[in-house]
Parts: sequence; structure tokens; C-alpha cells
Amino acid sequence: MQQSEAIVLAMFGTTVESALQDLLAIQATVKEAYPKTPVTITFTSNQIRRIWHQRAADPHYLAQHPGIPEEILHIQGILATIANLQDQGYVRQVVQPTHIVPAEEFHDLASYVRGLGSIQTMKPRWRPFQTIGLGRPLLGAYSLKHAYADDIRIAAQTLASDAELARSRDAALVYMGHGNHYFPSGGLYLEFAARMRELYPDVLTLIGTVESFPTLDEVMESLHQHQVRRVLLKPFLIVAGDHAVNDLVGDEEDSWQSTLRREGFEVMAEVRGLGPQVASIFVAHVAEAAAEAGVELR
Amino acid sequence: MQQSEAIVLAMFGTTVESALQDLLAIQATVKEAYPKTPVTITFTSNQIRRIWHQRAADPHYLAQHPGIPEEILHIQGILATIANLQDQGYVRQVVQPTHIVPAEEFHDLASYVRGLGSIQTMKPRWRPFQTIGLGRPLLGAYSLKHAYADDIRIAAQTLASDAELARSRDAALVYMGHGNHYFPSGGLYLEFAARMRELYPDVLTLIGTVESFPTLDEVMESLHQHQVRRVLLKPFLIVAGDHAVNDLVGDEEDSWQSTLRREGFEVMAEVRGLGPQVASIFVAHVAEAAAEAGVELR
Amino acid sequence: MQQSEAIVLAMFGTTVESALQDLLAIQATVKEAYPKTPVTITFTSNQIRRIWHQRAADPHYLAQHPGIPEEILHIQGILATIANLQDQGYVRQVVQPTHIVPAEEFHDLASYVRGLGSIQTMKPRWRPFQTIGLGRPLLGAYSLKHAYADDIRIAAQTLASDAELARSRDAALVYMGHGNHYFPSGGLYLEFAARMRELYPDVLTLIGTVESFPTLDEVMESLHQHQVRRVLLKPFLIVAGDHAVNDLVGDEEDSWQSTLRREGFEVMAEVRGLGPQVASIFVAHVAEAAAEAGVELR
Amino acid sequence: MQQSEAIVLAMFGTTVESALQDLLAIQATVKEAYPKTPVTITFTSNQIRRIWHQRAADPHYLAQHPGIPEEILHIQGILATIANLQDQGYVRQVVQPTHIVPAEEFHDLASYVRGLGSIQTMKPRWRPFQTIGLGRPLLGAYSLKHAYADDIRIAAQTLASDAELARSRDAALVYMGHGNHYFPSGGLYLEFAARMRELYPDVLTLIGTVESFPTLDEVMESLHQHQVRRVLLKPFLIVAGDHAVNDLVGDEEDSWQSTLRREGFEVMAEVRGLGPQVASIFVAHVAEAAAEAGVELR
Repeated sequence: MQQSEAIVLAMFGTTVESALQDLLAIQATVKEAYPKTPVTITFTSNQIRRIWHQRAADPHYLAQHPGIPEEILHIQGILATIANLQDQGYVRQVVQPTHIVPAEEFHDLASYVRGLGSIQTMKPRWRPFQTIGLGRPLLGAYSLKHAYADDIRIAAQTLASDAELARSRDAALVYMGHGNHYFPSGGLYLEFAARMRELYPDVLTLIGTVESFPTLDEVMESLHQHQVRRVLLKPFLIVAGDHAVNDLVGDEEDSWQSTLRREGFEVMAEVRGLGPQVASIFVAHVAEAAAEAGVELR
Repeated sequence: MQQSEAIVLAMFGTTVESALQDLLAIQATVKEAYPKTPVTITFTSNQIRRIWHQRAADPHYLAQHPGIPEEILHIQGILATIANLQDQGYVRQVVQPTHIVPAEEFHDLASYVRGLGSIQTMKPRWRPFQTIGLGRPLLGAYSLKHAYADDIRIAAQTLASDAELARSRDAALVYMGHGNHYFPSGGLYLEFAARMRELYPDVLTLIGTVESFPTLDEVMESLHQHQVRRVLLKPFLIVAGDHAVNDLVGDEEDSWQSTLRREGFEVMAEVRGLGPQVASIFVAHVAEAAAEAGVELR
Repeated sequence: MQQSEAIVLAMFGTTVESALQDLLAIQATVKEAYPKTPVTITFTSNQIRRIWHQRAADPHYLAQHPGIPEEILHIQGILATIANLQDQGYVRQVVQPTHIVPAEEFHDLASYVRGLGSIQTMKPRWRPFQTIGLGRPLLGAYSLKHAYADDIRIAAQTLASDAELARSRDAALVYMGHGNHYFPSGGLYLEFAARMRELYPDVLTLIGTVESFPTLDEVMESLHQHQVRRVLLKPFLIVAGDHAVNDLVGDEEDSWQSTLRREGFEVMAEVRGLGPQVASIFVAHVAEAAAEAGVELR
Repeated sequence: MQQSEAIVLAMFGTTVESALQDLLAIQATVKEAYPKTPVTITFTSNQIRRIWHQRAADPHYLAQHPGIPEEILHIQGILATIANLQDQGYVRQVVQPTHIVPAEEFHDLASYVRGLGSIQTMKPRWRPFQTIGLGRPLLGAYSLKHAYADDIRIAAQTLASDAELARSRDAALVYMGHGNHYFPSGGLYLEFAARMRELYPDVLTLIGTVESFPTLDEVMESLHQHQVRRVLLKPFLIVAGDHAVNDLVGDEEDSWQSTLRREGFEVMAEVRGLGPQVASIFVAHVAEAAAEAGVELR
């Protein structure tokens, strides 16, 4: 049994085939950085895994979608993904979430890693893991080792092309984040937007959320205050899935696009997930988690 | 040995005698709500405890400050405070921090409570604690049981008199929060300010931080944008200690007051800690933590 | 995804095909008791799993041993066995060791179960396990819930046929236990032997260990004291593997059989593992662990 | 605040003044070994602490027992003892039980130490303990670091004078241990007795327990088998408290002394606790726990 390293990419998952490409792009980037290390995807959503398993058993679906990797069709949850790697001798693992903020899903994932890492054996050589590290989300985690403020700055630098695109169209850049009522991701978003405005002062960058603070209303108030007329919408989400397609640019009258148009703004949209753009940041987070865990990735 | 309840108020502490009154006011309010339960203060700052212990041994100091309670002069840290209560039979405890946001100090406190609560005995009746609960900070904690957004709303409702005071002076209300680079308290502050503006729309409420995001510069940009001329400064801190006296309204040229005046604003200040105003919120958080822990406080 | 129950039998494992039957007999007995519940075997020995995986890839071996179950050929370790069941929706699991005493291996297994059981999620419904229980070894565990002394008594009652066999041959019954220097299994063995003598007073039952206290010398001293001439040897081990075949009845001059013969005793041996005899006790321990964990097995 | 070391001696406690001397003797021996380190006693029995507190408030009692140390009159439980030392700056502690075997009380104590040691702070310098180590009982703990078999051998070597005393009186040496049904201390006792017989072959050393296996009946059977006529009884207990005074040599007809006499044995007794004899072993266990925890005691 080899004693070696593996990387697990923990993703919420998606059932939208086009959005899946954003996730596979992250995997490809991490694989390129660590060509000798297995980089395995897990989907944390039970429901999304179930749908893929149904598709895997459906010859009709398979015939129509020839390109779906086996790994996705037979995708497993966190525990089985990590455990099967461990059973094959990968006793040094780094688990990297592709979450944007450290909210519910990240806390749950951290509990898995902590629980597995807590397994002690009387003789150290029988421990299931020599080490199991956890990378932080795009905008950082709550830890004194890495200032979240630095992670936000790096994200803003990495998304230069978004600002460039908005400027070329003479538009304000309005991101749609997810948001929630239990973890103050809204604050991270606002600080991210502030950093964008600082780095790209000729573009007004704002951000609202689907579910929480700040709201689209608060975004619109700002747009009015700055006397903006043209808006470029973009999801601040890893994949351009349901939220992007429906809540952001859907035809329903309560989509952001519809609402903004009703308010008199000229609206354009760039319906792409952040995944491919920020994959290199996740590579950096993998590298830092590995270094902290004393793992040398190859 | 009685089998009963105690409340521990975990405070960073202060050495400023006037600021101490803000902390004692919180204790008094909690005692009033639970007159049959001991309400014990602990200061988490080692340095502040040390200074009080030196004063306790200094007859000169004691003669000049006759009103300092014995409890403060002999103040203990978290562990000893909780443990001595336990040794006296208080096996059901609620620990209530007087922190504003769930940052480093709250996480450390939670680790104490978790560590103490993890002590198991083979026979349940010998467990040191029947229960030990933890209340959440003023603006909430990261948990699915209580939406932080609700805590923020309640804080904004509670601070109506601040908005009233600003309005009566025809001024914008600018709070100074503490801030840090590791926990996104800035976002909680911004959401709090948004709720204030919503509740009290005729007063422009803004908030900046001493150490992090949002900065005074970002506050000033907003003041200019709203064409504000008069500003009422107030610390968004439990006690009006060092930060309030020096960083906010100090004579140095880099205090907020000096900076704003240089920028042409007319500046007033209300140099009081939030403690007495928000004590009732801490009472509510004690009550909720007790209820969750199955403790009936009297 | 079904939300259902599974039983995991945690065994050290064996590579001896005949000894494997003792383990499969335990599995069969548990399956018979719970016909609607999957009863999955895991081998905790890395080396033994590796050997089975090599055999699984060796057509020659497979041709010569047609009866080995697929489950054994592709046997997995504790973590992967539990995790793959979890991934299939078995969120209520009972892990039952087939250890005789609670020594190193049991403590390690308990750490796995504790680590996996410690995984919390913010929303209870996403927890990987609704419950994961751990059964106790043959002679009990250190817990106040079940007196180890009762487990020992039950084991002695269950092994009546061993005493009967010794009596029919007019011999003392001498068991060989494993023993170790770190966990006082010797005391459990001695108490077991005392219970055997109490239940079956016309047979002198003694027990020694391969590795620790009590030794064969101490057994022989007792045999001499009781003026015994004939001895029936039997392994006090789940399977009749290496220790039974070599250390107990091997031709080498330091096997127990050789040593006893040299000392003038007439020696017979019953070279069978305890597995099939005590399988019903493991069923009872599964049932008790399930009841404590609130799991209803079918 | 000094950053220094303390030793806590965790004892069940006693209310018998003469027996208290056995405990104070242990403390004195440890103090002598580490003269610059505070060596603080805690009594784990709630009831015993309560009785001492009542005595401390009883002028009559105090007048009649002038020699009781203040430390005993105001004795605290484990948590408060450790926490008050921590509050005074003793952030490196070694907790040494004076238990004979690792049974219920030791497991509970270990849970306290583990719980306190689990308290983490975000900044390592604010951790309440730099280290908190736990020494093992007289006859060892279940760990791979120290073979319990070695601890038993050392105890047998240390108690040479007991064998000498029995030999000088031409008697068998019969110890009374405590025993319990949940932790196999009986096996440790039997192994201890076997080591005594090995080291001092001209004295028959046996051991029985008050509550469990092996019983006095089993001891008597052995005495008869060895055709012993004279017996020296001695408690295998740290203090000669209630069990020694009543169960061992009491006048009631079911005391060991009465029973043995009725059976025709000539009985002598040495009613002294083991405390002073084995204090040096506890010093050694303190030293080993300190070394493992990286603490240098002075």
C-alpha cells in the first residue's frame, strides 16, 4: 500500500451539464498544478448525487450526454470519497471546498474533517490519516492564520477582467451573491465590492444577494445615488446554475434583470460561473492547507 | 451542597474607573432580571486583572477609590470564575459574553465552555456541570438557531435614542466600531447601519472601524455623497474606554474628531459606552441560552 | 435513498482459509438474527487485507479456492466499510467487534466510532449518521452500563460443551488466550476460568496466555498442585489460526503441547476457534448496542 | 504573573483523621522531591469535602483537632483546584491520582484533564494551559507507553517489607483490595500477587477484594490448598479507613478476620494504608507524566 497524498474537492454540485463544466474546470486546474496527485471530486448535496446516479442507470441519458465523466456519474459524498481514498493508502489528504464564503456548508465540511482527524490509535502507525487538512473558501475562513481581508483583496485582483468588461461597456458591475441569514457573508461581499472599487476606480462595482443582506433594493439605491444608467450583471457564484439562469436573468418579472429594467436601467449580463476564473485561488488554498498540514503535494 | 444556577458575565474588562460603571450597569440589569441567581463578572484580559490585583494591594489607591466593588478588585479569569461557582454547587451555569460581535474573544470563550461541558463522568450524577450554556454576542453568533440578522434588527431598535439624539442635533450619526482582519465584523456593522437607516430614515447612520473595514475614509466618502455637514460621533463599543477617549475624540490630529473637523465637518460627540443601553439585550440572550440549555433561572 | 440500518462486524481477519470459516460462521449467525439488515465484514489488519487483494488478482489462487466470498476478496478497512454503507443511505449503524477482550484493537475501533459519531452538521438532518453504536467484546468493555463480570459469566455458560468434552476425557481443560502487557486481559481470563470451575466443578479449567500473564508456567504449577495428569488444550481465540496451529499444538519443542508432554502430562487438543460457539453472544451484544443507540434492527 | 508549574494530587479523600496522615505523607514525599513546586491536594469525593467544610466551621472540632492543615479544611474539588492554580499563573500542571487501579475514578479524572486540555484559543499565547498532564495509578493505566505489567512488578518490589513481615511471623500474606464489577482490577491484583510470590518465594502472598473478584472464598480455597495455618492480613488500600477498620479486622462476624478465624486460621493484621509505602512510586509517576508533557519540575 503506497503512503501518499490525495486532494478532495468538496463541491455542492450541480445537475446542469453546462454548469458542470465550471466545476470540471476547477478540477482540471488543480490537476495541472499537482499532476502526480489524485484530485477527486465529491458533491455534498445528497439530492444532486442521487440525480447523477439515476442518470448513470439511464441508457437514454447516457447516449445523449456522452461526455459526462464516470467520476461524476458515480459521484460519492464526502465521507465515502475520503474513506475510499484512505482505504487505497492515501493517508495524507487535503480537502478543498469550492465554497465562496465560510457559511453552513463550510462549517459542516470542517466538522467532517475534524471528526476524521480526531481518530486516534494507540500505536501512531495505525492511524487512518497521517494528516487531513482543510483549505479555506474563496473569501477566507475565520482563522488568525490568514486574514480574510487578504483573501478578499486577492479575489478582487483576480476578477480584473470583470471590471474590464464592465468598463468596456460603460456599465456599473453588479454581482449577485447567494447570502444567508445565519452567517454574515453579506459583509464579505460588501468588503469585496469596496476592494473592487478601490482597484478599479473607474467602474462602480456593487453586490447584492438572493437571500439576504445586502438586497437588490440596496444595490439600486446605490446605483441611483451614483446616477448609473447601464448595468452589467454577473453571478458571484461558482457555477452559473439555477440562481444565475432564473433569479438573475430569468424572464419572470422578479428576476434582477427584469426588476432593473423596470427601474429604467439598461441591463447586460455575463451569465458565467466564477469557477474557471478563481480556480487558481483554490490551487493556492490547497497549497497553503497542504503546507500547514505538513503535506508535500506533487 | 445546593444544586443551582449561576450566571457568568464574560467581559474583556477595563481599568478606567468611569468605564467600569458601564460594565457594572450590565451586571445590575442582569441581577434585576434574575434576583435569586448569582451574577458573577469575569474579566478575560490577563493584563487588566493584574492591574486590579495590584490596586487591591495598594492602600493609597483604595483610599482614593472607595467605591470599587470587592468583586472587581479580586476579579478572576474565566476558568477560575466558573470553577469556583461549580465548587460551591452551581452546576447549571449560563456564560454570557458582553462582546458585540463573534470574533476572536467569543471563539475563545466558546472553547472554554465547550471544553468544560465535555467533561463526562462514568456515572452521570458526578458530572461537574449538569449544563453549561453560552449566550451570544450583541449582534449574534454563527448558528442556525438564531438568525444574526434578527439580532442586528433588535440592536437597531434598541438604539433608537441614538438616532433621536442625532436628529435633534440635525446631524448624521457616525459610530466607531472596533473591527479586525480575521472575522468579518465589518459586515455586521454595515448591516446594522443599514437597519438603522431603515428604521430611522431621517437620520443618516454610518459606521466605521478603528482597525479594519469599513474605514473612516469610507465613512467620509458616504458623508460627502450625502452632503452631510454635521456629524454626531459615538463609540459602538460596550465601554467608553481608551478607543473612545483617544481614537474617537482625542486631541491628536489623527483622531476621528480631528480628522472630520479638518475635512470641514461640524463634529459633536456622545462619549458613552453602549453597555447600559444594550444590557437588556444581554438579559434576553441569557434567557435564550438558559432556555436552550434547559436551565430555569430565577 | 433509504434511511436504514446496517451492522458492521469488525474482525482482525485471517488469511487461513479454514479459519475464515469461523469468521463467516459469526456473520451467518448475525445475518440469521437480522435477516433484513446488511451484515458487512471489515478486516482491521492492513496486511491481511492486502493479501486478500493479491489473491483476488491471482487467477491461480481463485481457481484453487472457488468458495471464497467476493466480500472477503475485496475486503475493506473500517473507515471505507462504514463510509460506503453510509453513502448508500445506511445512516444507523452498529459496529460489533469480534474481539475477546477490550484491548488495543478495541480502543482503536472505539476511536473510529467516536470520531465518526462526532461529525455534526448545522442542520441535524444533514448529519452523516443518525446513530452509530459500538458493541462490546466477548468479555465486556469498561463501562458502567454492563458489568464485565456478567459478560464473563455468560461466556462461561456458553462454553459448557468445552467442559463437557474435557470431562468425557477425564482431563483438565487448559485454554490458551492471547494476552498483552498493556491491557490486563489476564485478569479477565482468570476470572473466566474461575467462573468455569464454579459452573463445572468436576473439571479443572485453567487458562494461560501466549504473550503475557498468566504464563504456561503458572498454568503448570496449578496442574501440579491439583495433581492433574491429563490435559485437554483449546485455543481461547476466535479463530484457530497461527497461534493455535503453531504455538499451541505445533511440533516445535516450545509449543504448549510439546512442553506439557515433556513435563509428563498426557495431552489432547481441540484445535477450533471460539467463533461459531460464541457467535450468539455477539448477536446479543449487537442487540444491546442497537437498543442503547435507539436503533431497531430487523 | 509567573508562568510556572504545579502538581495536583487527586485523592478520593478521607474523613478519618488518622487515615488523613497517609494522604499527607504522600504529599510530603512529593513536596520533598519537588521543593520549588506547589503540590496541592484535591479530594474528589463531594461528601468528604462537605464534611471537612462543616468541620472548618465548627470551633469545637477545630479546638479538638489542632493539627489539621488549612488546605484540608478548605479542600476543593478537581475543577476549582486546577482552575485556581491556573488563575495564579500555573499554566503547566501535572495531575497525579493516588488511585491503585485505573477504574471509574481514574476515568472520570482523565475526562477532566482531557476537557481542560482541549480548551484552545485562537492565539496560542492565550491558552489557559500550556500543558496539563495526567499521571497513572499505582498499578498502571491502559496505555502503550507504559506496560502495566512493569508497574505491577515495581509495586511488588516496593512492598518487600510486607513480605518480610509475613515471613518473620511465619504467616501467609493476605491483602484486601477494593474491587469492582466494571473494571477488571481483580486481574491486576492477581498479577500483583503472582509477582509477590515470584519475588518472595518463601511467603505465600494472596489477594482478595471487598466487592468483586477474587473473593475471600477464593483466597481461603488457596490457603487450604497450600495448607497454610497463619495469616497476616493487610489492606491493599491507600489509607486504612473504613474498609480496613471494619471489613478487614472489625469485630462483626463477617469481617475477614472473623471469617478466617472461624475457619481455623490464626490471624494477625497490619492495619496501615499503603500510602506512605508507595508515595515514591507516585513521585515516579509524576516525573514520567511531567516528562511526557514536556514539563520540567523543580
